[in-house]
Amino acid sequence: MPQSNQIPKGVIVPIITPLTRDENIDEISLRKCVRHLIKGGVHGIFVNSTTGEGLSLLDDQKRLVLEIVIDETNRMVPVYAGVSDTSLGRALRNLAETVELGADVAVAHPPFYYPPNSQEELLTFFQSLTDHSPIPLMLYNIPSTTKAHIELDTVRILMENDNIIGIKDSSVDYVFLLNLIELKKYRPDFSIFIGKSHLWTGGIFSGADGGLDGISNLIPDLCVQLYNTITEGRFSDAVALQQRINEIWRVYECRSFLAGIKMAMSLRGLCEPWTTKPILMTSEEEQERIINILREYGLLENKGVRK
Amino acid sequence: MPQSNQIPKGVIVPIITPLTRDENIDEISLRKCVRHLIKGGVHGIFVNSTTGEGLSLLDDQKRLVLEIVIDETNRMVPVYAGVSDTSLGRALRNLAETVELGADVAVAHPPFYYPPNSQEELLTFFQSLTDHSPIPLMLYNIPSTTKAHIELDTVRILMENDNIIGIKDSSVDYVFLLNLIELKKYRPDFSIFIGKSHLWTGGIFSGADGGLDGISNLIPDLCVQLYNTITEGRFSDAVALQQRINEIWRVYECRSFLAGIKMAMSLRGLCEPWTTKPILMTSEEEQERIINILREYGLLENKGVRK
Amino acid sequence: MPQSNQIPKGVIVPIITPLTRDENIDEISLRKCVRHLIKGGVHGIFVNSTTGEGLSLLDDQKRLVLEIVIDETNRMVPVYAGVSDTSLGRALRNLAETVELGADVAVAHPPFYYPPNSQEELLTFFQSLTDHSPIPLMLYNIPSTTKAHIELDTVRILMENDNIIGIKDSSVDYVFLLNLIELKKYRPDFSIFIGKSHLWTGGIFSGADGGLDGISNLIPDLCVQLYNTITEGRFSDAVALQQRINEIWRVYECRSFLAGIKMAMSLRGLCEPWTTKPILMTSEEEQERIINILREYGLLENKGVRK
Amino acid sequence: MPQSNQIPKGVIVPIITPLTRDENIDEISLRKCVRHLIKGGVHGIFVNSTTGEGLSLLDDQKRLVLEIVIDETNRMVPVYAGVSDTSLGRALRNLAETVELGADVAVAHPPFYYPPNSQEELLTFFQSLTDHSPIPLMLYNIPSTTKAHIELDTVRILMENDNIIGIKDSSVDYVFLLNLIELKKYRPDFSIFIGKSHLWTGGIFSGADGGLDGISNLIPDLCVQLYNTITEGRFSDAVALQQRINEIWRVYECRSFLAGIKMAMSLRGLCEPWTTKPILMTSEEEQERIINILREYGLLENKGVRK
Repeated sequence: MPQSNQIPKGVIVPIITPLTRDENIDEISLRKCVRHLIKGGVHGIFVNSTTGEGLSLLDDQKRLVLEIVIDETNRMVPVYAGVSDTSLGRALRNLAETVELGADVAVAHPPFYYPPNSQEELLTFFQSLTDHSPIPLMLYNIPSTTKAHIELDTVRILMENDNIIGIKDSSVDYVFLLNLIELKKYRPDFSIFIGKSHLWTGGIFSGADGGLDGISNLIPDLCVQLYNTITEGRFSDAVALQQRINEIWRVYECRSFLAGIKMAMSLRGLCEPWTTKPILMTSEEEQERIINILREYGLLENKGVRK
Repeated sequence: MPQSNQIPKGVIVPIITPLTRDENIDEISLRKCVRHLIKGGVHGIFVNSTTGEGLSLLDDQKRLVLEIVIDETNRMVPVYAGVSDTSLGRALRNLAETVELGADVAVAHPPFYYPPNSQEELLTFFQSLTDHSPIPLMLYNIPSTTKAHIELDTVRILMENDNIIGIKDSSVDYVFLLNLIELKKYRPDFSIFIGKSHLWTGGIFSGADGGLDGISNLIPDLCVQLYNTITEGRFSDAVALQQRINEIWRVYECRSFLAGIKMAMSLRGLCEPWTTKPILMTSEEEQERIINILREYGLLENKGVRK
Repeated sequence: MPQSNQIPKGVIVPIITPLTRDENIDEISLRKCVRHLIKGGVHGIFVNSTTGEGLSLLDDQKRLVLEIVIDETNRMVPVYAGVSDTSLGRALRNLAETVELGADVAVAHPPFYYPPNSQEELLTFFQSLTDHSPIPLMLYNIPSTTKAHIELDTVRILMENDNIIGIKDSSVDYVFLLNLIELKKYRPDFSIFIGKSHLWTGGIFSGADGGLDGISNLIPDLCVQLYNTITEGRFSDAVALQQRINEIWRVYECRSFLAGIKMAMSLRGLCEPWTTKPILMTSEEEQERIINILREYGLLENKGVRK
Repeated sequence: MPQSNQIPKGVIVPIITPLTRDENIDEISLRKCVRHLIKGGVHGIFVNSTTGEGLSLLDDQKRLVLEIVIDETNRMVPVYAGVSDTSLGRALRNLAETVELGADVAVAHPPFYYPPNSQEELLTFFQSLTDHSPIPLMLYNIPSTTKAHIELDTVRILMENDNIIGIKDSSVDYVFLLNLIELKKYRPDFSIFIGKSHLWTGGIFSGADGGLDGISNLIPDLCVQLYNTITEGRFSDAVALQQRINEIWRVYECRSFLAGIKMAMSLRGLCEPWTTKPILMTSEEEQERIINILREYGLLENKGVRK
């Protein structure tokens, strides 16, 4: 991992997975997206994430995506890879493949079909994962898809394991985020990444280490700029930039947020808009709204609009 | 399918998947369970269901379970097989394997990681599945795990496809169940199976076609007896038997319902109690409670209790 | 109470409260509704219920409604009166007035602004209420408005108090209903009334004592007929009648169920359609749908439709 | 209103209502609390709020509390008064009394027994209220008790009415809060108050006008100091102070938050710990925890602890 003496900080991007119309991996676009992110100055790329449709792709597609991204990043930034699945056994298998392919960090959220029955189950799950992992593990709290909230006491216990290097919190719960940040007093090198970009300014100023939101696929430079503005202590500039990003974030406000971000990416010429079925493409009305947002914020760059 | 001129009716059992302590398929116990069910008079066996931990097993384990059950049932009853997954692509791959292995009916619930965004997505999903399926498809409504409710209007549209032969409703919503039953006026041969056994008496008397609850792994004979009592119109006998089954059902009231049913099955000598991790075994207190229930209802058969 | 040697059984109607356009009590229509219900053969009238907008009316309006209904029923059927409020103190004051005005039974659900913090609070509430009540108390479980579910163990404890004569369950949870019915083994004279009419046939056949749903304002005769059909053991007739009532029940499927039932009542000439503000009247489309339902089931009686 | 040329800003305190053991208003303690708050430098006092048990008190108690607070504040700070109820009619009656008694601002959340059916109902409610109000109205969004979320578009429309001067948002939804703040571009003098103190630092730095959390009953001086630190742009001092307040806020973490804050207030010698029944007092364990928090943060002041 390139930043070996540092804990993860900054903007990590859950990279989208460009697909062709018949749902194959679009390697050319994927490589283009990687270069777009690195050029934007991001601090890490997260493969097979929620945004990356990592839970919907076929197993060999997931491996292919990881291979391509590792190859294209060429170790300029660390590569994080999602390994979660419906059970410990399946997640361990994913983890082994991920390690073999050369990911720097494994990222795991709770199993997601059966609603987890207790925090004890979550402890068992994460501890077993990390016991089998030669690479660092990052926790991932995302109750909206997993139906499970990783509670504060559970994080507190898991923090005692040095191989667990941090957590991405996508609960959109600011009070929980502040409470997570307070846990850093027990272990200052435990990284806290904020899933929802709206919470970055308040959260990073309050002590979180970085942001991890799919919107940075679209505007990696602005996201990195926000991070820098915050860490330089320029609060009023940060608030203004935050408002701008919040407005651009509205490209997500579609029936399917995945369809929204992919349409926006396609309008910027970075990929095609296709998502894994049965997720439906944006409606015409949604597409129109996205075009307006991109135009308003100078993100269409005078190029012709995709038809 | 053996009952080729009939629509599915009666008691279909979502068979548990016996595991060894190190989480391999316990083939001997699985075959024993199949014989136990057939001896109990059940009308079908459903493999890789929610109860069967079908969503937690490794892919090759799922195939193995299906092969064993098809072999052991020896076409005495039809074999239903779960094919659901996180996306259409993954479900289609499961479906193809299931067909190849010889299942009689495929059973599918909505994709379950990303919360489905609209009923239109569900329509797309089920219609694509059935378009690719040479065997009949049964819908499966289980909002507690999928976060998606298949709405009445969606069922109404899907009913127009003859290859979709019915629905298993595990929503535990009696009003929805009655509304489903009313849809039979549009297609009398559309089978409605009730997931939660408590609703069997009221629901089957009101027109549903059968029951599909994991508790019938433990007491297939009683479940079949309840079904027969209802269809013979003996309502007060049915109510009494229903109450008895409701009491036995309390073996499920553990932190993990899967751990509960497996412990009960193991106490009856049908398998070991292990579940796919991170699901935890029953606590000692839970085990004690299950023993008491089985003893009260004469289900321990004077055998020594498992230590 | 007229049926002094019997426990409450049958159809109790949560009577609507007819209002004038400027939101005064419409006494003439209220008396007409009472006569309509008694003529329909109902077994009790419940004043200031959820359906009766008892929680929205001004205090003096609530008293007036109770006075009028007691006067008009003339002790032909017992009068139940809602006494719930946001705290024990307020409920006790309501109870005292209700007793003074001559209600036969007080009905109480949990306090409803602050979400109750524990079942212990609910026990305290109901026990204090009944300790101060010279008339019998009926529990009322309605989580959709109170955010509190009266759990089975709580009912079990409260049943030990003879002055608590039963429970109305509006949780629309059939499993909970069956569990409630099983508690009757501890006290056979504890009455169980089912809030949602869809559950009447299954529930009363399974041992519940009666039904208490606002739809019986509209069709008291059909509701009583359903109850009689069930208690006479004619199950298939009951199922057919139940389906008919379920269809008529769709008059409730409006933005506001209160607006729906009042529009239906007004179309039958029993009152004006006004509700307590800010609840809005039915839309034109909703009104059209209600007219169609009433017409289909012969409930418009060739009278001109209200403009 | 003393600050006639300014919009409301700063720390407004939803004052607790001290009660005697037999649930009468404890006037002496109430006056003591008012003086405690004014000495702490707060910018307003909010009577009959959620924290003030305004929805649980008897009607004449609510009036008495308002009278005492108006008298004791002696116009040193404006007095806000809660007027919400279960219907528009009841709220209008509360409003009339509140105006007559001399409150400076009326505060209203949506009706709370019947779940509101649409944003249109909420618009009707708030517009009717303000049309009848000779004093300014502040909106109050608190979905946890009212089951209704006042949506952004609804606020946007209501902002057009000058007599509606702001909103208190207790949704604990940071994204919604940022979106509310963006609405200030349409009307800069629309005040936004944050209900949950954890969100004050991030929220006020981002443009909100002040805080309104019950914790300021206990530590008005610290809350005012936090507000001043933020508005002076000293972000890192604010974050440190925020963390301290977050820790003290844990006095709320009891079965009943009302019991928690009242016990803490009683331990500081400001009132007795009684709440409106059926809310139960803190358990011994909870009380012990509160003592520890107060002691750790120097809030027990060497006084003997309440027995």
